[in-house]
Amino acid sequence: MAEPVLNPRELEFQLYEVANTESLLEREKFSEHSRETIDAMLDTAQRVAGDLFANHNRKGDLQEPQFIDGEVHTIPEVKEAFSAFAETGFLAGRQSFEEGGMQLPEIVMASAMGIFTAANPGTTGYPFLTIAAVNLIQHFASDELKATYLPPMLDGRFSGTMALTEPHAGSSLADISTQAVALEDGSYSIKGSKLYISGGEQDITENIVHLVLAKIKGGPAGTKGISLFLVPKRRLDAEGHSGEKNGIALAGLIHKMGYRGTTSTALSFGGDGETIGYLIGEPHQGLKYMFKMMNEARLGVGFGAVVMGYQGYQYSLAYAKDRTQGRPIANPDPSQPPVSIVQHADVKRMLLEQKALVEGGYALCMYGARLIDDQQTHPDQQAREEAGLLLDLLTPMIKAWPSEYCTKANDLAIQVLGGAGYTRDYPVEQYWRDNRLNPIHEGTNGIQALDLLGRKVWLKNGKPLQLLHQRMLKDISAVAEENRELASSLEVTLGKIAKLVPTFGQAMQKTGPETVLANASCFLNLMGNTVVAWMWLRMANIVAEKLPEAVGNDKDFYAGKLQAARYFFRWQLPLVERDLQLLEGLDTTCLDMRESWF
Amino acid sequence: MAEPVLNPRELEFQLYEVANTESLLEREKFSEHSRETIDAMLDTAQRVAGDLFANHNRKGDLQEPQFIDGEVHTIPEVKEAFSAFAETGFLAGRQSFEEGGMQLPEIVMASAMGIFTAANPGTTGYPFLTIAAVNLIQHFASDELKATYLPPMLDGRFSGTMALTEPHAGSSLADISTQAVALEDGSYSIKGSKLYISGGEQDITENIVHLVLAKIKGGPAGTKGISLFLVPKRRLDAEGHSGEKNGIALAGLIHKMGYRGTTSTALSFGGDGETIGYLIGEPHQGLKYMFKMMNEARLGVGFGAVVMGYQGYQYSLAYAKDRTQGRPIANPDPSQPPVSIVQHADVKRMLLEQKALVEGGYALCMYGARLIDDQQTHPDQQAREEAGLLLDLLTPMIKAWPSEYCTKANDLAIQVLGGAGYTRDYPVEQYWRDNRLNPIHEGTNGIQALDLLGRKVWLKNGKPLQLLHQRMLKDISAVAEENRELASSLEVTLGKIAKLVPTFGQAMQKTGPETVLANASCFLNLMGNTVVAWMWLRMANIVAEKLPEAVGNDKDFYAGKLQAARYFFRWQLPLVERDLQLLEGLDTTCLDMRESWF
Repeated sequence: MAEPVLNPRELEFQLYEVANTESLLEREKFSEHSRETIDAMLDTAQRVAGDLFANHNRKGDLQEPQFIDGEVHTIPEVKEAFSAFAETGFLAGRQSFEEGGMQLPEIVMASAMGIFTAANPGTTGYPFLTIAAVNLIQHFASDELKATYLPPMLDGRFSGTMALTEPHAGSSLADISTQAVALEDGSYSIKGSKLYISGGEQDITENIVHLVLAKIKGGPAGTKGISLFLVPKRRLDAEGHSGEKNGIALAGLIHKMGYRGTTSTALSFGGDGETIGYLIGEPHQGLKYMFKMMNEARLGVGFGAVVMGYQGYQYSLAYAKDRTQGRPIANPDPSQPPVSIVQHADVKRMLLEQKALVEGGYALCMYGARLIDDQQTHPDQQAREEAGLLLDLLTPMIKAWPSEYCTKANDLAIQVLGGAGYTRDYPVEQYWRDNRLNPIHEGTNGIQALDLLGRKVWLKNGKPLQLLHQRMLKDISAVAEENRELASSLEVTLGKIAKLVPTFGQAMQKTGPETVLANASCFLNLMGNTVVAWMWLRMANIVAEKLPEAVGNDKDFYAGKLQAARYFFRWQLPLVERDLQLLEGLDTTCLDMRESWF
Repeated sequence: MAEPVLNPRELEFQLYEVANTESLLEREKFSEHSRETIDAMLDTAQRVAGDLFANHNRKGDLQEPQFIDGEVHTIPEVKEAFSAFAETGFLAGRQSFEEGGMQLPEIVMASAMGIFTAANPGTTGYPFLTIAAVNLIQHFASDELKATYLPPMLDGRFSGTMALTEPHAGSSLADISTQAVALEDGSYSIKGSKLYISGGEQDITENIVHLVLAKIKGGPAGTKGISLFLVPKRRLDAEGHSGEKNGIALAGLIHKMGYRGTTSTALSFGGDGETIGYLIGEPHQGLKYMFKMMNEARLGVGFGAVVMGYQGYQYSLAYAKDRTQGRPIANPDPSQPPVSIVQHADVKRMLLEQKALVEGGYALCMYGARLIDDQQTHPDQQAREEAGLLLDLLTPMIKAWPSEYCTKANDLAIQVLGGAGYTRDYPVEQYWRDNRLNPIHEGTNGIQALDLLGRKVWLKNGKPLQLLHQRMLKDISAVAEENRELASSLEVTLGKIAKLVPTFGQAMQKTGPETVLANASCFLNLMGNTVVAWMWLRMANIVAEKLPEAVGNDKDFYAGKLQAARYFFRWQLPLVERDLQLLEGLDTTCLDMRESWF
């Protein structure tokens, strides 16, 4: 068996020591699980990911899927990996025991998916999308559709996709023009072009279930007229077997700079004969359904960004321990042998920054996953509601912050390796290229910023932000003496944010939302860094408890956490002062810029 | 003819309005040039670059050089481009008229090279390296070597390389182990492995002249024992014709994430029979010679980073003007047609940031090129000396700042395009990949930081920094009323830097250099951003003069410059406050980190 893919000590720390997953297992729904069974499942994930996913991560990048004579060809390792994934049971990880699932907490599912993504983001794209599609169908589709499509998706015979984007409509889904025309039997004829559909065609499953946004002819304009359809690649016969093709033409494969293992497709529904689709839920509610699933998809994007960042960090760390170059500044004697570069302060900086970014992002994503669990299974109703509100508020940060900063961590990993990092003989450049998708897909980070400042901050009269504030203050007041420096910084930033938000409300009332939203990205950056600082404070608080009695490797492990927390508070958090200033002044530099001036 | 490659209006602004190149033409050496002749040369560069370099920029990336049966094969367009470049005369652009050159000012040469790099960085690598090698040979080699090798290099029959790095010695040249053994005829037998040698093998010129760092057996240890050798790929016969191979084995081609048009090679000197080399200058002075040329090479790296950033900016700007998506926040009516994305504030932000970064970097590099001219040709001796000192001080910033921030601009260009930017159907991802080499080669940015804070700041008792300070204060005091906001910010930052540096000196005396140099990268970042802010102040001062009387496109052009200057001062410069705080407190977070804690 290969080495564990994702550092097991870090996983243990995040899952049990920080997110306190064992407390979840006391709940009715998870009472048949124990730390031992969960660890066994995650060990399985490590093993399968190591043996059958990590083995072709580079190969999948070098030999991207080919489109030959109308058929897509992926390297054979992808199908093998997908099958093995299905056999682990994780495709049905969220489903109840009665449904044949593993009834796992969300935080465990997220951890497992993180392991596979760390091993091979491209190949993991297929199960990731399938799980997301299953979730949506299960929540919103009719019993008949569920009975027909879920079993083959859960056992890996069918995969899933999300078909939203069109050539002329990406961020602006209001403008999609794919049409659905009702047929006599209650199904619909679907016609239109979709672009950048990940996994939209492949040769690894017998069928593909596309979840397609389309407009029913005669419906309202804009997003209010969007409906959601289940559209199989091949129609099913009466016994549920995949039969004739369903009229979907593959217009082409998109060639990307990274994430090459997952096909990205241009699909033409109705482009090769009639395409039949089945309405999911009510007409014109499609976007609502899709967005209901977005919290989880966006958490998946954020956590994917984290583990890619984490792998780059681990690789560059191992390289820095091994590679010798130069001598200590205090003793540069050339007759002495060179030292490992991890001993140079500037290399430590690049490693410590990676550590602070990726482990901070890790804690944030685990926090988000735990909120999903609390929203769904907390015994107290108020706690469930609060978890939902917090999750709504944090989702744009969970998607955007890791996708920006853990990609930055990958950039630092390249720099640690120097010339070697720039070559394709080392994996760090691929981590960067793969991760660079994350600030773009599932809503660009600019869209996340508008979601946060334009919508989430104002939900329920600002209750989610108040809840966040309270939770942070609780951890600030519980701070250990040695972490007071960190707690004070966070408290100061928090105070400024608390003053800032009401000024936005006033400005919006006075002059409309334009001036405030012009700098939404600054606010997202400010909030993202603040919540990650909070995560580091929480981790530092845990360390303060455990370090005094820690021995051996644990002593180093906890000391490193504390130093990374300090790095985050001293080097990273102060950068938001810029954002605070701009936001406090309602800066209009960008808004005032004119097209003709560029 | 193709469109001009690099925006001619920007080039005109930088070259004539900001750097005042016409004043150079009054000097004796350049008296035969006029603005008209220089413009004609740059037009030639635009034409040749557009027709014969830009045409295969993507192809060179997709079809990187192949190593088949011991031979390197590049696509045929590269040889054609190299020949056309030679025909323009720019290979001998710096040489005097008597030497058959064009006797051009450095700032004009830099501008011309910028045009070619903008069109195709990979292919431009070959002439760039040849020009650098010519320069070095001309300065330090014997008349005999010059007479033998310069003519075929200047007319493009031979190309040049710089062979410094070895598998175990990159940043630490002290440890190179390539050996030179004196032969009876005064030449040397060279034996050793070199890595990442750009242009080290190719099929476009009849011969290659390697400039190789090696140690003469029995010399001193460390950098003091390094000598420089001229080592041809093929030995020359008595008539100077390229004859038999010189024993250099190509161990392999390195596959890079970008800059793929330039071969990167592993060479084994003495790996295929005996390799003969010729000493350049005195023994053990090799590193000094190499570094003497580094100012110009590092300026080339910085300016290359600028033009790649600039091209990404221009492309994403054109895309943003063309691509429609969404509606104005103030009027989101979905029944109205969508607007071009350049009208969204957050897209303006990403474009304005690119503009502020790349045009600021442009001015910095032009300033550096002008200093080279002043160092070489200013009629006043004190002015020549001062230009040399300033150039020494600015060189690490000129290399590092654009290579970091103009690569960041390329990242923003990807984000402006969204999903399209992530595909290989659009050029922006290649700009990023190509540019990502620049923070690494010619001394990593970490090495630049040590050069700045460990050496340059302390030269001649700190005179270069005083000179820089004076020049900035001069522009601050000459500020136009409407730019007072900008001047004040710069003055405040400058005051803090002036207080900071003496504290470094004291700390170094007290505890040695380790603590101070631990945060050298912060200081480099602080200084780089401060000098680019100064460049923006200089540009804003020029605009203040010209805007009142400007008409038509010029009015927009200057208004855009002013807005970009404001962006830089409001959004970019405040980020250095973090660095100032860390440096003022002699932060030891990174230094204190231990290997075992990672």
